[in-house]
Amino acid sequence: MPDTKDTNSNLIMGRHPVQEALAHGRQIEKILALKNGTGSVKQILARAGERGIRIRYVERSELDRLAGGVRHQGVIAYAVPYRYSSVEDMLKLAAHRGEDPFLILLDNIEDPHNLGAVMRSAECAGAHGVVISRDRSCGLNETAARTSAGAVEYLPCARVTNMSRTIESLKKAGLWIAASDMDGDLYTAANLRGPLVLVIGSEGRGISRLVKEKCDFTVSIPMRGRIESLNASNAAAVLMYEVRRQRDAE
Amino acid sequence: MPDTKDTNSNLIMGRHPVQEALAHGRQIEKILALKNGTGSVKQILARAGERGIRIRYVERSELDRLAGGVRHQGVIAYAVPYRYSSVEDMLKLAAHRGEDPFLILLDNIEDPHNLGAVMRSAECAGAHGVVISRDRSCGLNETAARTSAGAVEYLPCARVTNMSRTIESLKKAGLWIAASDMDGDLYTAANLRGPLVLVIGSEGRGISRLVKEKCDFTVSIPMRGRIESLNASNAAAVLMYEVRRQRDAE
Repeated sequence: MPDTKDTNSNLIMGRHPVQEALAHGRQIEKILALKNGTGSVKQILARAGERGIRIRYVERSELDRLAGGVRHQGVIAYAVPYRYSSVEDMLKLAAHRGEDPFLILLDNIEDPHNLGAVMRSAECAGAHGVVISRDRSCGLNETAARTSAGAVEYLPCARVTNMSRTIESLKKAGLWIAASDMDGDLYTAANLRGPLVLVIGSEGRGISRLVKEKCDFTVSIPMRGRIESLNASNAAAVLMYEVRRQRDAE
Repeated sequence: MPDTKDTNSNLIMGRHPVQEALAHGRQIEKILALKNGTGSVKQILARAGERGIRIRYVERSELDRLAGGVRHQGVIAYAVPYRYSSVEDMLKLAAHRGEDPFLILLDNIEDPHNLGAVMRSAECAGAHGVVISRDRSCGLNETAARTSAGAVEYLPCARVTNMSRTIESLKKAGLWIAASDMDGDLYTAANLRGPLVLVIGSEGRGISRLVKEKCDFTVSIPMRGRIESLNASNAAAVLMYEVRRQRDAE
């Protein structure tokens, strides 16, 4: 059977998932659909046709085989695999736009919803990319992509093997490294102008010690109530928009 | 059968859900568990015991009957129903703290994850309550509670029948009503000090026309990338912390 696990991860199965992928501008290679599909499958195919996506009509047995038990409802899309970028690409993007680099580094983010939400907010706030860890983070999957509302198609995401080393090289490139944690300076009082990396830790465990040690300074969001912290994507959004505010005020 | 749908909605079933409820300080009335439970069920019961929660050992058949098909894994908790507050309670809370009232009004929020995340950020940002619509919003359920990381236990949430009328009465009480929408003033340039209601619309549809017309002014978060908007809870967090920033700078 030619379908490895890796290939299968780019299959989008079922009416609603395929509809969402189309709605969010996910790059689709081709769509396999049941002959004589009705209702929403017809709509999906019409929409795909408008976008010039190849459609191949197949027998139910072929869809069943590809789906391997997952509900396909008569339609399976082959999505173009998400392409990871490099940190260098992000720096180039910033240079191309004539802006100081602004990167988000997610240390140990495990929930693809959080990754997707951070990608979305990072794109909206005008960041140049999101860096995740190869080993200890979730990757760009369909959940992250859906939550990102399409940001995965626009904003570079890099997966790196060694966070500490990446931070070292970003420092050498002239970026300041700001950790988001509880023991730092008030984030609105910190200088977040200039080339910047914002480091966000995982929910629960925060930023790992090795990564934290590499950071130049720490910023904190004030907590007024009886909860210890914001959710990771909300914290990231608040900080990213403070960077935006300070940059726009210059 | 004595269990109405309403009562059932306060049943928390399964090991992980019950563990989470305990971890997040959810008020639990009692726990029903299988006799001779092992592993994590033992841990759950030990933890519940420390908190003085009543534990009753029952037969599998009783758990099965209560669960009605849902996986209970030998443990079901009876949670105290979430209590909705009133808008008046929120104003009293603000007065009690000697602060200008700061309320969040969610127009048509449908996703309990978003409601929970907004509750969490609102509690962290020092707001006095979150107002939702009785008809057109999701309510405080277990998903919202879990996502709120416990905020539902601390922050008042009010359900109102008529949003427009609620806004009218808040205006009369001296609060300014700020809509979050795309066509407004830059949010960091708007005056968000003083008694304030922040109105956040639903994802996709935004704020309904009738509610929007009642607002005193509109604020917008700048969008730099190719995505139209932030996710509702991220937008709310950014705006709430701008209110916090302006208030703390006074």
